Amino acid sequence: MSIFEGFQMQLLNAFEQIEGAAFRRDPWTRAGGHGLSCILEGGEVIERGAVLYSSVTGQSLPPAATLTRPHLTGCRYTVQGVSVVIHPRNPFAPTAHMNIRHFSTPSESWVGGGIDLTPHYLFEDDARLFHTAARDATDPHYTDWKRACDQYFYLKHREEARGIGGVFFDDYQASDGLNILERLVNGFIASYTQILSSRHDTPYSEAHRAWQLERRGRYVEFNLVWDRGTAFGLQSGGRTQSILASLPPHATWQYESTPETGSSEAALLEVLRVPRDWL
Amino acid sequence: MSIFEGFQMQLLNAFEQIEGAAFRRDPWTRAGGHGLSCILEGGEVIERGAVLYSSVTGQSLPPAATLTRPHLTGCRYTVQGVSVVIHPRNPFAPTAHMNIRHFSTPSESWVGGGIDLTPHYLFEDDARLFHTAARDATDPHYTDWKRACDQYFYLKHREEARGIGGVFFDDYQASDGLNILERLVNGFIASYTQILSSRHDTPYSEAHRAWQLERRGRYVEFNLVWDRGTAFGLQSGGRTQSILASLPPHATWQYESTPETGSSEAALLEVLRVPRDWL
Repeated sequence: MSIFEGFQMQLLNAFEQIEGAAFRRDPWTRAGGHGLSCILEGGEVIERGAVLYSSVTGQSLPPAATLTRPHLTGCRYTVQGVSVVIHPRNPFAPTAHMNIRHFSTPSESWVGGGIDLTPHYLFEDDARLFHTAARDATDPHYTDWKRACDQYFYLKHREEARGIGGVFFDDYQASDGLNILERLVNGFIASYTQILSSRHDTPYSEAHRAWQLERRGRYVEFNLVWDRGTAFGLQSGGRTQSILASLPPHATWQYESTPETGSSEAALLEVLRVPRDWL
Repeated sequence: MSIFEGFQMQLLNAFEQIEGAAFRRDPWTRAGGHGLSCILEGGEVIERGAVLYSSVTGQSLPPAATLTRPHLTGCRYTVQGVSVVIHPRNPFAPTAHMNIRHFSTPSESWVGGGIDLTPHYLFEDDARLFHTAARDATDPHYTDWKRACDQYFYLKHREEARGIGGVFFDDYQASDGLNILERLVNGFIASYTQILSSRHDTPYSEAHRAWQLERRGRYVEFNLVWDRGTAFGLQSGGRTQSILASLPPHATWQYESTPETGSSEAALLEVLRVPRDWL
């Protein structure tokens, strides 16, 4: 088992314990790659969850794969990665996302990744807990990578962030790269399972659910319109089912629905419009 | 009232008559443009419908606006257009889309547009009726423009068409351009209202509805990932609410759901995988 497959098992165990049920395992092989897509649908806590591992070897590194090392474009490479998206059923439990990846070429290797949280209702304690985990995993880079996360997970056409952020980084080549990923996985599990456990049985109304589904529409918009990984994957013949496993189970769209001033829905929008420093 | 505003009124009247209720009128003005977005949500026949008019004047024609006349890039221009998307509530009633547009620069003008149908269940009679209307409006161009439609409304990452096609054309500069658009509007109204009237009260089950919502997920994928107009609009600061009025009210995503062999759901997929000649 590779380090990344180990990360995947660790994440799976954590979410299977919370759900009290197993994710479906879907191993796959394609020219130059293999992976294990683990999916849970229709759970009590997790309405849709994906914990994905993949390892792909290519003969020519695409230019988009490294912005800071253009001399490597065209090299043979291997990229391993683990992606997680958890869409809880309860509108008060936030959606969470983690991605970690390791690129290697014959001469150099580097890592990238990040974690970010997408609440439908804002709980400042949850935001602080999640950002504390992100900081502890990535310091002394937290401030830069927190800003990079706010910039990346942004829907320009809505003028709002996807969520309350976390950290996001790429092209990281120092020798502690894998240690940072390890701390990130541990911090993600510890903070998000605590948040999920404390929110997943909050009583909610149809109106709360409707708001959740509308916010999930925004999640779809971000992933399909702005996320470079999704667009690149779909347009370059990646494995569609795995790439789109990040999408929510249900989403809705409404014309110009604006929450009432002073409502908790409006409070969420405020924080999405002006990213906050949580620590 | 301009010709295009007249087209919009004609389309609105037709769909308001079918629904027995009025679309909400949302006029808007922005730098260099104005429009009237007409939206119906939560109707009995039409679950979500948009009939949009816009007129935009710009100082510099973008290269994407005309593929065949690069010498006009950078010219002052005005583009007027009408877009229609109707998402019926009944899973047996197909979603329909129409777009017509007129570009003018100081030296040249041209039109583009098309109509296409996206059934969730296939009725060959409906497909023939719709394609007959498309042919009658566009002959002698039907064969070419039908093929262009099949090519344009295609989800590469799913290896399937969005629907059963229609016609699609661009950069059409001959003097009968506006007449073609007029015939297209009339043909669209006549054929689609007939289809809608005959399907909208078909009894259906939860399973039919679930299939409809899953197919609507594909509609979202096409519009957000592949549609050049949507991507261009969102990334260039267009009016988000109007651009995204084409999205369905509800959509779902499931991991690898494959319809049973021999089912009517599987029959639809077959025709989406290999576009058919309907006439």
